[in-house]
Amino acid sequence: MCQLMGMSANVPTDAEFSFSGLIERGGGSDIHRDGWGIAFYRGRGVQEFRDPQPGAESDIARLVKCSGIKSTILISHIRRANIGRVSVENTHPFVRELWGNYWVFAHNGQLRGAKKNLPLNRFRPVGSTDSEHVFCWMLDRIAATLPHRPRSAKKLWRFIAELACEAHDYGICNFLLSDSRCLYAHCSSRLHWVTRQAPFGIARLKDLEMSVDFSTQTTDSDVVTVIATDPLTSDENWERMGTGSIVVWKDGRQQHF
Amino acid sequence: MCQLMGMSANVPTDAEFSFSGLIERGGGSDIHRDGWGIAFYRGRGVQEFRDPQPGAESDIARLVKCSGIKSTILISHIRRANIGRVSVENTHPFVRELWGNYWVFAHNGQLRGAKKNLPLNRFRPVGSTDSEHVFCWMLDRIAATLPHRPRSAKKLWRFIAELACEAHDYGICNFLLSDSRCLYAHCSSRLHWVTRQAPFGIARLKDLEMSVDFSTQTTDSDVVTVIATDPLTSDENWERMGTGSIVVWKDGRQQHF
Repeated sequence: MCQLMGMSANVPTDAEFSFSGLIERGGGSDIHRDGWGIAFYRGRGVQEFRDPQPGAESDIARLVKCSGIKSTILISHIRRANIGRVSVENTHPFVRELWGNYWVFAHNGQLRGAKKNLPLNRFRPVGSTDSEHVFCWMLDRIAATLPHRPRSAKKLWRFIAELACEAHDYGICNFLLSDSRCLYAHCSSRLHWVTRQAPFGIARLKDLEMSVDFSTQTTDSDVVTVIATDPLTSDENWERMGTGSIVVWKDGRQQHF
Repeated sequence: MCQLMGMSANVPTDAEFSFSGLIERGGGSDIHRDGWGIAFYRGRGVQEFRDPQPGAESDIARLVKCSGIKSTILISHIRRANIGRVSVENTHPFVRELWGNYWVFAHNGQLRGAKKNLPLNRFRPVGSTDSEHVFCWMLDRIAATLPHRPRSAKKLWRFIAELACEAHDYGICNFLLSDSRCLYAHCSSRLHWVTRQAPFGIARLKDLEMSVDFSTQTTDSDVVTVIATDPLTSDENWERMGTGSIVVWKDGRQQHF
């Protein structure tokens, strides 16, 4: 299994604190040592870092932690390999372009029979994971059904929810996805989230001796949601997502559809 | 204008020396300070680093220099913005997937009218450069003409040469491209290359007080070709490519077609 972490915020936000907690689980406080990756949306672009080394020992991860990179959407993943060897091409998140936007996807779980039963067309996996296969299948289905980004965002959200539901039939399908505008989280078995907004307080990581007083780093209008496989902090109220549920976040806030 | 650097090698090779010379031109010894990027092919995957900061001042570039990452194909770029603002989405190299392989592209020059006259279909630029537009157009043409990777590699090489020739009609089109198997270099105005093989000697960078004795880092069978806009070293015989010429490298060696 693997672990996921995502962020949606209404202002470009530094993820040093949350990423430090997650990456420690990549061979430090936990066993997810088969590579890691992170993709920051910055403007229309994506700045990505990935490494087949364990996150807790990676020089690149150390740099990311203190890079100060700010973004409004990010997706990160630490890997415990099941399907597909330990290699750069099998590190999540995966990135593709559709409609002139980068789409980013990271997955936790195993999807038995997905490679055999979910056909592909123009998007093809480069590595050998079931995760990348499912991502390509989703993009193929979206591209075939919606040749352009629909005017109604909800139309897209509902379609992605349908696809998530179909993928879920093949096994465990916790995923984070972004179309560069929203962050989608689908829970098959385990995914938690917390929204940080005024009044901001102090939070302490579970995996590392590190705490932060968010009130010193934010303004009253900031809204930041962090999603993670397991809660990253010990003193915040993380909500557990329900099995089979999908949530869409935009600017840190949950969207209703 | 911008500057390009590429490498093709028959064994995974560290590019610290050449990258150190190039990146110094990103605001140190030269004016190409509007962002930079590098993509290393590792196995079937691509490990990329990019930053809208000047290369000579970038913490990420410093990390890349001493990362020890080895690859058989890499493409790097330092940018002096002409078309498109300074931003992550406008940093080269650009990456897309076709046929289950990552394709990487970096460009130096200006292509007037290319955006207007070269139509796009399934591949779309995310940023606003003419370079990314031309890359998407090339991939569209390749995908439409060759739905699968042709058995004959030369068929693909010739088609890419035709596309380069068409793009060249719009202005200056020095580019480096890889389909994950070969490195393609097209010269409109300025591109040089050097092949390092036994007997290896000492080389000294032009832009930095740094030299290397390749004989201590290589075996007799190693073949490494480095391509750059301007020669990176002062004591090697760099060949200048002819205007309108395209060269394909595989495993460090020039291919004939």
